[in-house]
Amino acid sequence: MTLSGPAFGRRIAELRTSMVASAVDAFVVTSRPNLFYLTGFDGSAGAALIRPTRAFLMVDFRYLTAARDMLAARGERAIALERVDGDHDEAIVALLEREGAQRIGVEAESMSIGRFTRLSTALASAASPGVDGSGCPALVPLERLVESMRAVKDDWEIAVLREAARRLSAVAREIPALAREGREEVEIADDINAAIRRAGFSRPAFETIVASGPNSALPHARPGRRRLQSGDGVVLDFGGVYDGYCVDLTRTIQVGRWRPDFRRIFDAVLEAQRTAIAAVRPGVSGRSLDRAARDVLTRHGLGDAFGHGTGHGLGLEVHEEPRISRTAPDSDGALAPGMVFTIEPGAYVAGTGGVRIEDDVLVTEGGCEVLTDVPKEI
Amino acid sequence: MTLSGPAFGRRIAELRTSMVASAVDAFVVTSRPNLFYLTGFDGSAGAALIRPTRAFLMVDFRYLTAARDMLAARGERAIALERVDGDHDEAIVALLEREGAQRIGVEAESMSIGRFTRLSTALASAASPGVDGSGCPALVPLERLVESMRAVKDDWEIAVLREAARRLSAVAREIPALAREGREEVEIADDINAAIRRAGFSRPAFETIVASGPNSALPHARPGRRRLQSGDGVVLDFGGVYDGYCVDLTRTIQVGRWRPDFRRIFDAVLEAQRTAIAAVRPGVSGRSLDRAARDVLTRHGLGDAFGHGTGHGLGLEVHEEPRISRTAPDSDGALAPGMVFTIEPGAYVAGTGGVRIEDDVLVTEGGCEVLTDVPKEI
Repeated sequence: MTLSGPAFGRRIAELRTSMVASAVDAFVVTSRPNLFYLTGFDGSAGAALIRPTRAFLMVDFRYLTAARDMLAARGERAIALERVDGDHDEAIVALLEREGAQRIGVEAESMSIGRFTRLSTALASAASPGVDGSGCPALVPLERLVESMRAVKDDWEIAVLREAARRLSAVAREIPALAREGREEVEIADDINAAIRRAGFSRPAFETIVASGPNSALPHARPGRRRLQSGDGVVLDFGGVYDGYCVDLTRTIQVGRWRPDFRRIFDAVLEAQRTAIAAVRPGVSGRSLDRAARDVLTRHGLGDAFGHGTGHGLGLEVHEEPRISRTAPDSDGALAPGMVFTIEPGAYVAGTGGVRIEDDVLVTEGGCEVLTDVPKEI
Repeated sequence: MTLSGPAFGRRIAELRTSMVASAVDAFVVTSRPNLFYLTGFDGSAGAALIRPTRAFLMVDFRYLTAARDMLAARGERAIALERVDGDHDEAIVALLEREGAQRIGVEAESMSIGRFTRLSTALASAASPGVDGSGCPALVPLERLVESMRAVKDDWEIAVLREAARRLSAVAREIPALAREGREEVEIADDINAAIRRAGFSRPAFETIVASGPNSALPHARPGRRRLQSGDGVVLDFGGVYDGYCVDLTRTIQVGRWRPDFRRIFDAVLEAQRTAIAAVRPGVSGRSLDRAARDVLTRHGLGDAFGHGTGHGLGLEVHEEPRISRTAPDSDGALAPGMVFTIEPGAYVAGTGGVRIEDDVLVTEGGCEVLTDVPKEI
């Protein structure tokens, strides 16, 4: 194993194993993060076709030079570049036909019904089936083939996420200097975004949240012109994209002296977060981690004040598998070493304010490693 | 007609007319821009159910207060708020069942095959059909019902886009002060992003492009650490989101003296852009506008150097209908008054550099109004 770069070859090999299990002889990749994961290409349009022994990256004029340079730079021999002239879907159908693919897997989680229908229709009219319909290629929606691979990070990805979390922690340590009485929420958010860029991230991973005073009781408040006042609780939630990978961090601060009612919420959320982190190990489910956090808050009379999930996977997307939740359909699966996700319980009480505390963790053989490193109370 | 805010009532009424034409008695909205367009809600998760005489906005705990305040602030009586506890899809199925909906339209362009399958399965198991299958509700994928409504802007939207284009033009006029010899591409891009925020936009509409010298020949280059040098051509492409609506602008500049070979490309692209803009009027197709620009570049020997489309619709998404393209499936439709899109031909020549010039236009009864207002040569 080398850490010199992403293991595209191993990923495609693993996908081929899943393709055999699903009895497809081709797999079409159009989801942008899946395409990046399998090929390294991150343009706004493109596709890959994975066949049992060959792989194609399909890009149009705009990305041809960049894609060719990328493949050449890493000495890629297993992925052939296909130039798309005109409509991408027509090009996909033409390549499938040229390849003689018969059972063609597509990404159920991201391909739209409209695109699925158009591709199916084009394939049917391109094919020359026997009178009994044999020989007519079929599209087969497959659930989360690549997404579930992406949920378990390899050594390269772990190294990137660890470094990203280290850098985001440094940004978080600037909070006390930025979130001061008299400053506007948007001003603080702009400064955090600038700090994220300065820390080496290519961009914020989502719209930075700075929610002060009454706004803190709205879990997804947007920063506004409100100025921080003494007595405010302030929720600051921000993330960055580093080498393509997302990390995410939240801290809640008190401006001026702690109000006892707000401090009680803070302490309960902190206990819930520590309890959930302590419960992370291989084999437990996302649902059980959510329950660990939720039980603590319920014990403190804050069960109804915790209306969101406890966490979400981090990777090429800022919300991906695994879900640490009581409601997500896939939250019963066993967590495995190499999974990276947030632990971010919260409690939101109108009149008193809201608290959320979020760190990023990596599941290890023995339990977990907390990747972010910032005092909980800053 | 009032300009006091978006005409949600009229939009939902228009959607109901399309629902009758498609013979559905319910329409489920889960696409984020469509949901915003119909209800004004712009959280990261939510759904709407439109019925012949009622409408529901479904949000979870995180957005409940914000959604309630939003509906109350505009005195909304036609949209009922539904609280989602747990999984959104389960809540949609439960509401459909409670409502007794039978033929349920869904958004073909944005709903994934996976979600479609899960909803269908849940509906079938929730229903108590007759032995012949009657009474079993069916999901009906409908193509671009809301998207095609969104393509024609109403007076409120036009006022917002006009103001947004005016503000983005002011940002563009700062380019000569920012894009100077010796400065890095990323530095310039950061300054443009800051100017976009200062101009009142909520955020850049996409990752700002500053592509200098050889990078300008890559239509989708990302800003890097390259410093501008005398002799460089530089493509600057940026946009902003204002009141939810996207505008988009590109200028190409020459650092130092014009090189004759680069100037030739610039003049050809400018002629192509002016020709296409002059051809905009109701009744022509996006494809014919694309041809107008392409013919000019072909005449100058640059047909092969123009590998992308001539433009795209602007609105709640930065790329939406109509497509001004030779390849998009929907580029044969007649343009109509109220449509807003970019006109942005380009030519990219390795060794010499690339040029793209982009303005935003509104189709009017008599032709078009160019919304952006910046000298082509700045």
